[in-house]
Amino acid sequence: MKLATLRDGSPDGELVVVSRDLERAVRATAIAPNLLSALESWPAVEPSLRALASELERGSAAGAFDFPSADVAAPLPRSWQWLDASAFKSHGELMARAFKQTFSEAKPGAPLMYQGGSDDFVGPWADMPLPSEADGIDFEAELAVVVDRVPMGTPASRALEHVKLVMLANDASLRSFALAEKQSGFGWIHAKPATSFSPVAVTPDELRGAWRDGRLHLPVRIAWNGREFGRPNAGEMSFGFHDLIAHAAYSRNLSAGTIVGSGTISNDDYATVGSACITERRAIEMAERGAAVTGYMRFGDRVRIEVLDSAGQTIFGAIDQRMVAAGSATAR
Amino acid sequence: MKLATLRDGSPDGELVVVSRDLERAVRATAIAPNLLSALESWPAVEPSLRALASELERGSAAGAFDFPSADVAAPLPRSWQWLDASAFKSHGELMARAFKQTFSEAKPGAPLMYQGGSDDFVGPWADMPLPSEADGIDFEAELAVVVDRVPMGTPASRALEHVKLVMLANDASLRSFALAEKQSGFGWIHAKPATSFSPVAVTPDELRGAWRDGRLHLPVRIAWNGREFGRPNAGEMSFGFHDLIAHAAYSRNLSAGTIVGSGTISNDDYATVGSACITERRAIEMAERGAAVTGYMRFGDRVRIEVLDSAGQTIFGAIDQRMVAAGSATAR
Repeated sequence: MKLATLRDGSPDGELVVVSRDLERAVRATAIAPNLLSALESWPAVEPSLRALASELERGSAAGAFDFPSADVAAPLPRSWQWLDASAFKSHGELMARAFKQTFSEAKPGAPLMYQGGSDDFVGPWADMPLPSEADGIDFEAELAVVVDRVPMGTPASRALEHVKLVMLANDASLRSFALAEKQSGFGWIHAKPATSFSPVAVTPDELRGAWRDGRLHLPVRIAWNGREFGRPNAGEMSFGFHDLIAHAAYSRNLSAGTIVGSGTISNDDYATVGSACITERRAIEMAERGAAVTGYMRFGDRVRIEVLDSAGQTIFGAIDQRMVAAGSATAR
Repeated sequence: MKLATLRDGSPDGELVVVSRDLERAVRATAIAPNLLSALESWPAVEPSLRALASELERGSAAGAFDFPSADVAAPLPRSWQWLDASAFKSHGELMARAFKQTFSEAKPGAPLMYQGGSDDFVGPWADMPLPSEADGIDFEAELAVVVDRVPMGTPASRALEHVKLVMLANDASLRSFALAEKQSGFGWIHAKPATSFSPVAVTPDELRGAWRDGRLHLPVRIAWNGREFGRPNAGEMSFGFHDLIAHAAYSRNLSAGTIVGSGTISNDDYATVGSACITERRAIEMAERGAAVTGYMRFGDRVRIEVLDSAGQTIFGAIDQRMVAAGSATAR
C-alpha cells in the first residue's frame, strides 16, 4: 500500500491512497483525515486503507483521480519527532579522515543519532527555503521509516513490527555550521533546516524481498541539476532500522508518527557508486587530491532522489526540488 | 493570565484558565479545546481567555472549581518542538573545569542549544519513568517559554513579541550517557528522557517587573527529597530568551507551541545559592575536593522546583515529582 498527503491548507493535509504505479489516487479521508491520525490508530484503519488500495488497483475506487506526484505535501507534513541516525560506516570514516575528527559512538556498538525539526516538513517537489547561499547548502539522500507508538525499552528484536511505512528523505544541510555545531556536542540547530520526503510512503510489503534485515537493499539514485551524482545502495547500513528504533526508544516512548532516518547513504565502493551528499564527495576529494573541488549548491540548484524497483519502476516517486532563498519559496 | 491543562484521556488534554493564586480554575474549552490549538490562533483566542480569567478573579466565572495543582498534565502535554539551551555561563564553566572538556560555542557569541523529545511531556506531579537507576538520574531546574509561530530569520529584536507563556521545567537527565553523547557531537538521545513542566504557564505580564531583558529575575527554589538543594536566580542568563529564539529560528520556522528552554539555572555565586542539578554540584565537589561526593537520584527520590513572587506566593505552582522505574509510573 502506498500513501500520500494532498495539500488542503490544513497543517496535516489530506490522506490519499496511491496506486502502485503512482498514476492514480483516491481520498482516504473517510477512513482517517490525515496520515498522522491514521498512524495513531493504525490497527483500526489499516484494513480499510488496504481495502481501498485494492479497489484502486482494480480500477473500481469511486472518486479516483490522477495522482499529482509533483504537487503533494510530504506524507507527514509535520510529526511529533524526527530522529536521524548516521548508520553508514563508510560515510563516518570518510568524514573522519577528511576533517581529522573522531566520529565516536556514544556507546560502543550504538548508532549516532540526532533529533531534528519535525514541525515543518517540505513537500518532495516544493522549494526548500534557506537563509543564505553562503551556508554551504547540501542535500542528503536517506531512507526513513515511520513507526506507530514504540514504548520505552522496546528491544531491537521487537522494533521492526512498529515500522508501518518507508520513504525517502532529503535531509538538507548547511555545512558551514556542521563542524562547529558538532564540536559543541549539542547536535545541530543551524546546520539542519527543514527536511523533505518522497511523494509516497509505502508499507514494507511493497518492497518485497528488497526489504530485509531492517534495510532496503536497493540503490538510491541521486542527481544534482540533472546529472547523476551517486547511486549508493541503501542496504549497506551498519545498523538496521530495528537497531535505530531500539536505540531511540531506550529512555523515551516514541509517539505514533515518529520518523527514524538512516543518515546519508554511503557505500564502501564510493569510487564506483558515488555519494549521496556533497560533503562526502568533498571529503573524498580532500583525501585523494588534497583539496575539495566540488562546491556546494547555489540557490536555484535542484536535487533529485529516487529508487527504482527491479523492473525499473519508481517505488516512492521522486524528491525533485530546488534550494531557494527563504521568502521566495513556493508552497510546500 | 495563567493557563493549565487537565488530563481528559486525550493526548492534548483540556485547557483551563487558573486564578492568580492557583486556587480556582475554569474550563476554557469553549474558547479552544487545548493549549496547543490556542497557541495556533492566539490573537483570536487571547481576548476571550483573558476575559474568562477576569471573571475567575472576580469570582463570577460559571463552572469554576478548585484547581487540582498536583493532578494536572504539563501545560502542553506534547508540542511540535522543544529546543533547550545552555544559557548560564557559570554552569558551562563548572562543567568544563570538572570534565576537562571544552564547552565551545557553535558560533562565537551564540548559545548552545539541543533539540529534545517534545511528544511525551510529563505532568508536574506525575512520576518520571526511567529505564534504570544506574544511569545517573538527575534533575535540571529551568525556565522555559512558549512561542507562537516564529518565521525563519526573526531577529532577536523581534523575538520577545512571540513569547506567549512562561513556565518552569524539570529537564530530567541521565548523566551516564551525557559525556559520551556530547562527544559524539550529535546531541542527546539517551541522556534526555522526558521533560516535565510546572502546573501553570503564565503570560509574561503576570511576572511584572521580574520579567525584563528576556529573563525572569527571580530565584528558582529546588529541593531534593524535601531538603533545599539550590535557589539560583534565573535572571543570570548569559543570553536572554530573545537571543535563544533568534538562534533557534535562523534556519527554521518555529511552529506555534514551540518551547524554548534556558538550560539548567546556575549562578556565579554557587557557593551561596547552590545548584539546579546534581551534576553541577558534583562538578563543584570535583573542583574543590578532588572527587564528587553527592550521588545521583534513586528511584523514589523526589525533586521540587518552584518560584515565589516578592510576596511569597507561588507563581507557576510547583513541579514535585518522583523518579521511578519505567512501567511503575502513575498517570502523567
